[in-house]
Amino acid sequence: MALNKKKASESLTTMTELVLPNDTNTLNNLMGGHLMYLMDICGAIAAQKHSNRIVVTASVDNISFKEPIALGDVVTIKAHVSRAFNSSMEVYLEVTAGNIPQGTMRETNKAFLTFVAVDQSGNTIMVPELVPETEKEVALFDGALRRRQLRLILAGKMKPNDATELKSLFDSSPN
Amino acid sequence: MALNKKKASESLTTMTELVLPNDTNTLNNLMGGHLMYLMDICGAIAAQKHSNRIVVTASVDNISFKEPIALGDVVTIKAHVSRAFNSSMEVYLEVTAGNIPQGTMRETNKAFLTFVAVDQSGNTIMVPELVPETEKEVALFDGALRRRQLRLILAGKMKPNDATELKSLFDSSPN
Amino acid sequence: MALNKKKASESLTTMTELVLPNDTNTLNNLMGGHLMYLMDICGAIAAQKHSNRIVVTASVDNISFKEPIALGDVVTIKAHVSRAFNSSMEVYLEVTAGNIPQGTMRETNKAFLTFVAVDQSGNTIMVPELVPETEKEVALFDGALRRRQLRLILAGKMKPNDATELKSLFDSSPN
Amino acid sequence: MALNKKKASESLTTMTELVLPNDTNTLNNLMGGHLMYLMDICGAIAAQKHSNRIVVTASVDNISFKEPIALGDVVTIKAHVSRAFNSSMEVYLEVTAGNIPQGTMRETNKAFLTFVAVDQSGNTIMVPELVPETEKEVALFDGALRRRQLRLILAGKMKPNDATELKSLFDSSPN
Amino acid sequence: MALNKKKASESLTTMTELVLPNDTNTLNNLMGGHLMYLMDICGAIAAQKHSNRIVVTASVDNISFKEPIALGDVVTIKAHVSRAFNSSMEVYLEVTAGNIPQGTMRETNKAFLTFVAVDQSGNTIMVPELVPETEKEVALFDGALRRRQLRLILAGKMKPNDATELKSLFDSSPN
Amino acid sequence: MALNKKKASESLTTMTELVLPNDTNTLNNLMGGHLMYLMDICGAIAAQKHSNRIVVTASVDNISFKEPIALGDVVTIKAHVSRAFNSSMEVYLEVTAGNIPQGTMRETNKAFLTFVAVDQSGNTIMVPELVPETEKEVALFDGALRRRQLRLILAGKMKPNDATELKSLFDSSPN
Repeated sequence: MALNKKKASESLTTMTELVLPNDTNTLNNLMGGHLMYLMDICGAIAAQKHSNRIVVTASVDNISFKEPIALGDVVTIKAHVSRAFNSSMEVYLEVTAGNIPQGTMRETNKAFLTFVAVDQSGNTIMVPELVPETEKEVALFDGALRRRQLRLILAGKMKPNDATELKSLFDSSPN
Repeated sequence: MALNKKKASESLTTMTELVLPNDTNTLNNLMGGHLMYLMDICGAIAAQKHSNRIVVTASVDNISFKEPIALGDVVTIKAHVSRAFNSSMEVYLEVTAGNIPQGTMRETNKAFLTFVAVDQSGNTIMVPELVPETEKEVALFDGALRRRQLRLILAGKMKPNDATELKSLFDSSPN
Repeated sequence: MALNKKKASESLTTMTELVLPNDTNTLNNLMGGHLMYLMDICGAIAAQKHSNRIVVTASVDNISFKEPIALGDVVTIKAHVSRAFNSSMEVYLEVTAGNIPQGTMRETNKAFLTFVAVDQSGNTIMVPELVPETEKEVALFDGALRRRQLRLILAGKMKPNDATELKSLFDSSPN
Repeated sequence: MALNKKKASESLTTMTELVLPNDTNTLNNLMGGHLMYLMDICGAIAAQKHSNRIVVTASVDNISFKEPIALGDVVTIKAHVSRAFNSSMEVYLEVTAGNIPQGTMRETNKAFLTFVAVDQSGNTIMVPELVPETEKEVALFDGALRRRQLRLILAGKMKPNDATELKSLFDSSPN
Repeated sequence: MALNKKKASESLTTMTELVLPNDTNTLNNLMGGHLMYLMDICGAIAAQKHSNRIVVTASVDNISFKEPIALGDVVTIKAHVSRAFNSSMEVYLEVTAGNIPQGTMRETNKAFLTFVAVDQSGNTIMVPELVPETEKEVALFDGALRRRQLRLILAGKMKPNDATELKSLFDSSPN
Repeated sequence: MALNKKKASESLTTMTELVLPNDTNTLNNLMGGHLMYLMDICGAIAAQKHSNRIVVTASVDNISFKEPIALGDVVTIKAHVSRAFNSSMEVYLEVTAGNIPQGTMRETNKAFLTFVAVDQSGNTIMVPELVPETEKEVALFDGALRRRQLRLILAGKMKPNDATELKSLFDSSPN
């Protein structure tokens, strides 16, 4: 029996946090590791909403930390599933952060985390397909295949030459 | 005045942790986000040792979480700088984890994090070059250029066609 | 100069949390005190959004905990300012919680917290008026006066007989 | 078989805590939510001592936070059961706080929390009656009925007109 | 000008804590290190009360952990200064712990910690003498000299042969 | 059947930690109690490595805290078993700490903790003997007997006059 397909909006999860002293480094800025900890929990809840299953973190894609987030700032993470593959779900996350009294709220990070749905014994289990609706959701859905190939190559599970989606990025045909 | 070059072994940092209840998910396994939190701190200390500077996290490369790490397991993270570029340092980390009484200790993760050295105002500042010594250190040093190009592409700061090092991976010369 | 009025929706804040082992009591249920801790932070962020000021907690109204929330459940708190009085803001919070895989998500708590806007020295400072828009926001706005009188009586700052709004609740005129 | 009655002093519980950095807000003052977290644990231990049972938090009455408590201050919470009703216990708490070297210790908060005794399955279970001894304990015992009616009205479980104890507070007979 | 002498009872500090999941080891028992963490804070507050100064931990004497303390148990630590020497204070602590519903509360540990009073720059500063009153306080006061000699020997600051108080314990003269 | 003997180096455990805000006192220095918490975990892992068993903390010997360790400093703890007695293991720990950018790393503490190997029911269980190899390991091994007598005396389990090893320290033979 096929699982019902689900929309991206059904897994939308919003997490809002205050940057507390113990989350910060010597410069009183949020440590990258603490932000990743929050993103992992927010992403896992989004994947739970999509699959109605227990989920475990399978991988995190490259994340860059460009903007310092300070002690006392508010961090808001929005996450939703961007595409599902059998038992795995790619979750897209956007982080905005800043000091509300000082009016410095801005987008600071984007990230993709992948979660796998499992049963109580930890065995993988099928999840519903994702149906993208908005233009942005379609773009995320379409890019997911390329990102998946990159993950498989980086994990040593695919040869670069077999990554047809990804490879096209490097095609040098100049016209 | 040039900075003294430094060896990879000079930044070697070992962190050993016990997996406590609050670090675990519903399946009593270590949450991926908590492991990333620990890796960020361990990597930052390695980058401090190389640069003798305050450092901030610039990026984390793809990490995959293949093996569950359980409540009560011991996690050991070893980190050292694998290559330095001006003010930034790529740090290589290896995670081993397992239950000591049950004899299940094994390698669970490898990762690359990048840190930037800054002064007290947060301005970037030059760091010493890294000199690889062992065969493994040389391989990590050589691969750093390719990983750096991938980071720049993923951050939208380099076009795929300019990433000569990385591109060669996808060359389809069939012989 | 008068401050611009603000809508309730401008302070809407959503916090989503996973119930971790250390948040639970002997029955593996979320401790009431930990939920209050989360509500205080979520409410403070809503009050910051309304006032663009640093805020401090002034009071919390009666909260009852009817439904146990279990380890591994997801807790979502939604908060927005329901009415402003000079430098103080009443924030209305709704908590929903449950186990996503088990499909037990339901509303568990409602609460009112009051915050005061202060400057860096801790002196109180005026905040914008709140303009309710929806029917529900109007009802919350209207009830705020009665709740405020109750708070003042309970804090010993108003005599029951002067609480005209509140007193009408107890009027026994039977027809 | 009737349970033995117990004195208020038999449940007296004293908790002393140091205000640490992570307990504080942007002004370096203790967050109201952290104080409520501590009060919940202290009150639960008092209710355990009275009932010799597992207890869960049923409700917290209005609490106002008048005095800032600073980083490095010592917080002392004293709690004892003030009255028992079948399976529920009202606990009275007094908080004193201040900086010992600076000699600023003073009473900062009073509060009433209600706990319910339960068995391992979470079913409510009878608790001993409380026998007040001192003048203060008698006053707390007598006021408990009025506070209980207020809780029931606020929880929508009693009509204001049936709250005979509470209603008398609003009686306007002028002599 | 001489400082006023102080009684042991003036520094009496009571700390009551609930053993939470993250404080426990694989056997669900309180980790010795977490108990030492609590004892250090409780002892520091007692030393603050005696000296009205900022205090820092100077040493902890041998502590043995004979009885397991379980998840959900209540731990009560009572501490007071047992003797003062110039700027240092020996604090005596008694720990009782157990499960209240199961009625297993019993004394689990005794310990001596030493704290030093310092000013804001960290320089040591004189504290009041302690005046013991009860028989038990006198015994603790008298034994403090012997314990101090042991600490000095163990810290390599005194030769065993100069520890006249301590040495008498080993005198084998049989009559 | 006899257990295989083990070398000290087989239990060597290195823990590296960053001093975070919540670990510090009013002077922004690491609290002694937090350091003891870390030492307990590091020592327990070393004892696990020697015995391949679950271990519980039996005792901690005198520790003195001479040097302040500041917020932002790095703390490195190295631990290994120094001698085994039936089911108990003495673990020797060395702590180095300091600020890497400021170049203030130095040895701050030495300590001995004792752990006991237990089965899942908490019953003690035999551990392998330790074979010291280096000169330093031999010295630690030889001193263990004297320290053990001191622990037994301090725990009231041995009379000073029976502590032949320890007593020799106080022998006053003048030449």
